[in-house]
Amino acid sequence: MSTAIAITPSSRAFISDNMAGASEQIVQAVADAAVGQVLPYGNDPFTDNARRRLGEIFERDVDVFPVSTGSAANGLSLAALTPPWGSVLSHPGSHINTDECGAPEFFTNGAKLVGVPGSDSKIDPEALRAAVRRRAGDVHSVQPSVVSISQATESGSVYTLEEIRRLSAIAKDAGLRVHMDGARFANALVHLGATAAEMTWKAGIDVLSFGATKNGAMTADAIVCFDPVLAAELAFRAKRAGQLASKMRFHAAQIDAYLTDDLWLQNARQANAMATRLGDGLKAIPGAGLLATPQANILFCRLPQQVTEGLLAEGYAFYHDRWEPGIVRFVTAFSHSADDIDQLLDAVRRLAF
Amino acid sequence: MSTAIAITPSSRAFISDNMAGASEQIVQAVADAAVGQVLPYGNDPFTDNARRRLGEIFERDVDVFPVSTGSAANGLSLAALTPPWGSVLSHPGSHINTDECGAPEFFTNGAKLVGVPGSDSKIDPEALRAAVRRRAGDVHSVQPSVVSISQATESGSVYTLEEIRRLSAIAKDAGLRVHMDGARFANALVHLGATAAEMTWKAGIDVLSFGATKNGAMTADAIVCFDPVLAAELAFRAKRAGQLASKMRFHAAQIDAYLTDDLWLQNARQANAMATRLGDGLKAIPGAGLLATPQANILFCRLPQQVTEGLLAEGYAFYHDRWEPGIVRFVTAFSHSADDIDQLLDAVRRLAF
Amino acid sequence: MSTAIAITPSSRAFISDNMAGASEQIVQAVADAAVGQVLPYGNDPFTDNARRRLGEIFERDVDVFPVSTGSAANGLSLAALTPPWGSVLSHPGSHINTDECGAPEFFTNGAKLVGVPGSDSKIDPEALRAAVRRRAGDVHSVQPSVVSISQATESGSVYTLEEIRRLSAIAKDAGLRVHMDGARFANALVHLGATAAEMTWKAGIDVLSFGATKNGAMTADAIVCFDPVLAAELAFRAKRAGQLASKMRFHAAQIDAYLTDDLWLQNARQANAMATRLGDGLKAIPGAGLLATPQANILFCRLPQQVTEGLLAEGYAFYHDRWEPGIVRFVTAFSHSADDIDQLLDAVRRLAF
Amino acid sequence: MSTAIAITPSSRAFISDNMAGASEQIVQAVADAAVGQVLPYGNDPFTDNARRRLGEIFERDVDVFPVSTGSAANGLSLAALTPPWGSVLSHPGSHINTDECGAPEFFTNGAKLVGVPGSDSKIDPEALRAAVRRRAGDVHSVQPSVVSISQATESGSVYTLEEIRRLSAIAKDAGLRVHMDGARFANALVHLGATAAEMTWKAGIDVLSFGATKNGAMTADAIVCFDPVLAAELAFRAKRAGQLASKMRFHAAQIDAYLTDDLWLQNARQANAMATRLGDGLKAIPGAGLLATPQANILFCRLPQQVTEGLLAEGYAFYHDRWEPGIVRFVTAFSHSADDIDQLLDAVRRLAF
Repeated sequence: MSTAIAITPSSRAFISDNMAGASEQIVQAVADAAVGQVLPYGNDPFTDNARRRLGEIFERDVDVFPVSTGSAANGLSLAALTPPWGSVLSHPGSHINTDECGAPEFFTNGAKLVGVPGSDSKIDPEALRAAVRRRAGDVHSVQPSVVSISQATESGSVYTLEEIRRLSAIAKDAGLRVHMDGARFANALVHLGATAAEMTWKAGIDVLSFGATKNGAMTADAIVCFDPVLAAELAFRAKRAGQLASKMRFHAAQIDAYLTDDLWLQNARQANAMATRLGDGLKAIPGAGLLATPQANILFCRLPQQVTEGLLAEGYAFYHDRWEPGIVRFVTAFSHSADDIDQLLDAVRRLAF
Repeated sequence: MSTAIAITPSSRAFISDNMAGASEQIVQAVADAAVGQVLPYGNDPFTDNARRRLGEIFERDVDVFPVSTGSAANGLSLAALTPPWGSVLSHPGSHINTDECGAPEFFTNGAKLVGVPGSDSKIDPEALRAAVRRRAGDVHSVQPSVVSISQATESGSVYTLEEIRRLSAIAKDAGLRVHMDGARFANALVHLGATAAEMTWKAGIDVLSFGATKNGAMTADAIVCFDPVLAAELAFRAKRAGQLASKMRFHAAQIDAYLTDDLWLQNARQANAMATRLGDGLKAIPGAGLLATPQANILFCRLPQQVTEGLLAEGYAFYHDRWEPGIVRFVTAFSHSADDIDQLLDAVRRLAF
Repeated sequence: MSTAIAITPSSRAFISDNMAGASEQIVQAVADAAVGQVLPYGNDPFTDNARRRLGEIFERDVDVFPVSTGSAANGLSLAALTPPWGSVLSHPGSHINTDECGAPEFFTNGAKLVGVPGSDSKIDPEALRAAVRRRAGDVHSVQPSVVSISQATESGSVYTLEEIRRLSAIAKDAGLRVHMDGARFANALVHLGATAAEMTWKAGIDVLSFGATKNGAMTADAIVCFDPVLAAELAFRAKRAGQLASKMRFHAAQIDAYLTDDLWLQNARQANAMATRLGDGLKAIPGAGLLATPQANILFCRLPQQVTEGLLAEGYAFYHDRWEPGIVRFVTAFSHSADDIDQLLDAVRRLAF
Repeated sequence: MSTAIAITPSSRAFISDNMAGASEQIVQAVADAAVGQVLPYGNDPFTDNARRRLGEIFERDVDVFPVSTGSAANGLSLAALTPPWGSVLSHPGSHINTDECGAPEFFTNGAKLVGVPGSDSKIDPEALRAAVRRRAGDVHSVQPSVVSISQATESGSVYTLEEIRRLSAIAKDAGLRVHMDGARFANALVHLGATAAEMTWKAGIDVLSFGATKNGAMTADAIVCFDPVLAAELAFRAKRAGQLASKMRFHAAQIDAYLTDDLWLQNARQANAMATRLGDGLKAIPGAGLLATPQANILFCRLPQQVTEGLLAEGYAFYHDRWEPGIVRFVTAFSHSADDIDQLLDAVRRLAF
């Protein structure tokens, strides 16, 4: 590459985990996959491998659709789970509701996103119980059709298995399906110490947006479908939406490597640990109030204005004053080291006094 | 990768150019891009580089939207060029009409694809002249809104610059826009010996699906938009359709490397030369009639049944009896060598007698 | 009404049967329905009556959705019968394909209309047999999902019961559903002398667009659904598409009166008889060649140019030179009298010599 | 009509103004329109008359699209005013948001409805000021594109001219368009004593859903478009959505008669006066608290449970406990007489003690 590339130093990149690059093993897998001819459109051994690997992790047969973004995974999943006159129940602050420029509405041909509130970015069971039956059967109203749960949530909290099961049960009792937006699936999983099966289909999830990009992959997420009936439909929907890559092997190789030798879990543990380290450090700094103890790799806190400004001036990148004035978000990634975090904490400490 | 990967030998893979892997330079660029943190969603130096490189090649400012598939490039481009009540005029055998599971209809929210015939998979100017004004202004009919030209075409022919200009002029005179499906853009370009500018905006193209995947990239095509008014719209459409990759750098790095040091042109020349070599060889074999002299990297011919069956038995992969009985298609790729072609020719010769 | 209304004399109005007004009985029924309060949105006794009346005529339980236009009836019916990635197989000259500005594409969220040719505007069974399985299961192609039959057809021909059964069987064998566009349902029915049941569900029709507007009603057609599973879906689709009229009674009263005392059959017999009378008369005039003996109320013929021009000069209204030069279409309505037809024949005769 | 029709006595029908029948003059106009032949699809003198009449009332050229329901009027209007990635800002309790089964999402191809709160069912200007710029230009978010105002509102309040002008100005300053849902347009107009021009385009309205059905017509509302650029688009959208009636004269005749000799204003005055009479009466009854003084023909009040149950037992029809427990809605219509209201008041009084 002849042109110099301006890269934010790792220790200062906290806007999102998608600022990180990719794990070496994933880069290597992609390079390995670049050699030789295989059948296109997922009829290749790389995709077979990714599919088999996901089957092992979920301890059952699953249908897998590798896609290039989480928005596509969410949009396609929801389209398979709701008719156009249905409503998608999710937390008001969910990514699908606030940050996808209406992708769910596009993929579903105009379904309606209905917010179901709750603290810690989690859907409140009682609020859900009311929402799932709201105007059911009333032809003048969109029909509650699917509940979408973000795991981990957009604020870094993690649903317990029991919480997922409870929300699923409420949904299922009323005839709704359940989707999980797992953009940060691994981060939630290692926090819970649960199995992938326990956190999904055993807890009532029908379709999962399985995120890999934010946790060490490049451009590969996957729809993991636990309902074979929906799989045929998803195949056509994915193709029609431009998500059936001709050289699918390059998406699949990422997912395969991601799941090999626990790379995905190690990456998630590292990212989570860095958030915890950051949180612990901030707790000890007067004036830097955590909004919640981070459970995954996202941390929200309150910082004095001179600290925020000082960090920005030093080249730190992070979101601030976006949710409300004085609130700052740090997202840690698998690529952050303890040194990165300690430098950040030093800077906060220095600027705070 | 611990699992053995069954790979078709290069010399026997002729189903499509998407059976090939990726060029070394592109693999290297992706590996280089994996290190370090950058801003997500295309606000990164890799995407800047790709954009600048495309600007140089097209000799003007262009708006660039890297996407993960050609179907997405086509669908989004057409959506920006036609209202839902419009019609997209393309050759009946065009990829958008026959091989995308209705992706253009999905992205455009229900526009209608109308076939405009012509020999050699090219739109006939006189047929187009009639089609562009058909029921214009008649509220009972879809309204001709955009002409889509495949360059190179699906049968391996290439429009001359004069032919493109003529079709564009007919479209423009009637108030229509012009799209080019350039899934094999480079193959057409090197055949013509023209510049990218001459083959596109100087000839009246408004939006281009710029293909890279089939010619050495992994999972990266791009929409190149020559009309700034459409660019704002395309940004929202791309996001909403799940085509704004968070780690866009990995798409962009592929495009950047593809355009560096004429890699794209070399790859295309190699693929085209292999098709020509194959065509020349077949011409000399009795019973193996070419349907047309290949201009790009696709070759259609008539083979005796025992030859087709013999090749399949030997592990050759190619489409046959799909368009009509006895017709075989070979697609050559940048990765094919002269030896690969000669082996194929030997096999045909052997089986033909 | 204080403003003078310029009305085409009945004897000269042959553009379409929608130039006619409405039958007296239907006007009276609407006036009767205007008095008093009833529940809105079809929960009223008028709609109950229309539903019951249709049940009697079809000799079974049916689900009924009164709508304001045939385009809405067709669009909603097709939307219930095909997924967005499906294809709708109809004659290339079908109204849904040529004259609804893409309404089926709009209502279905982008399904594709695929033409299946045949003489006399009827789908050819052998052509259908090939079409229903074309690329079934191939994810790159839209999937054949529903066959749509116009009864009577757009050129005035009528499928026999045996022809309908045969097409339905071909569709059903391949897993497709069958829709009937019955914009001129009654005209076809009286031509065949069949029962409504025989011509629809007994012959394999799943959903019917039941036309009334062209045959004496004002603004009322109805979807008649023979598959209860689709009915729930149609209720939501109709509401969402703005077709659940709050004062549904006014649509329903039209349909009820239309079906009372055989008004619909009498009207259709009159319209058909007028086409036959016109056809018989034209046959006797040298130079006025019928393209086919009219079976319903549409007649296509070839007229010398001076006749066409002469008729237009005398204030006759009809389509000409629209399908091909020299071809003229006359559509007769329930409101035409034998005198109207004889005057037209006199004029043709006079102008022909 | 041989079948006995169970009709709610006028004095007991308060569910909605769509329980009423139609004004005699409108019935007569429809009957008059039923005689004779005219050109279809709105190319008829009746539609010309309706258009001219609306032009007079709005004191300027307007484009008019008669449609069969208010949902269609709203959906089509909004589709012309927002791209699919836009957001429609309306009061959370607006009809388009709560009672159309997602019709706006369907017609707009997936735009998002975003609630902007305010008291009395009116959008609060300060809340709007924040909403119109929220994430404008941010590709991750739907883009504020149109403000939709219900006049009169769903709770029976009426925006003042100054309020409309203020909301429009806020919208226009930020580049948004303004839609008015005028399902009860006349009721608002007579309350204000304003002109139709003042309440619409002179106050910044771009497109109006002009309601007639609820105020004495049968099945006819109209889109009135004040922006000629949008009119061409609306013509295609309406056809494609099944809203271009072939016998348009029957919609148009209703609108023409509705606007003749101030029928629309008289009907609205009567309906409003009946709500006022009801409100005045209720104020005098202990325990029957009005939520607000009715400005149009909708009245919300709190009734003791035994009153509600008693009224229902006596055959009164109205909505109760739908918004919150104990809350009752009465909607008055042009067809209600002072006697009807007094009987209702008598019943409430009787049941209250």
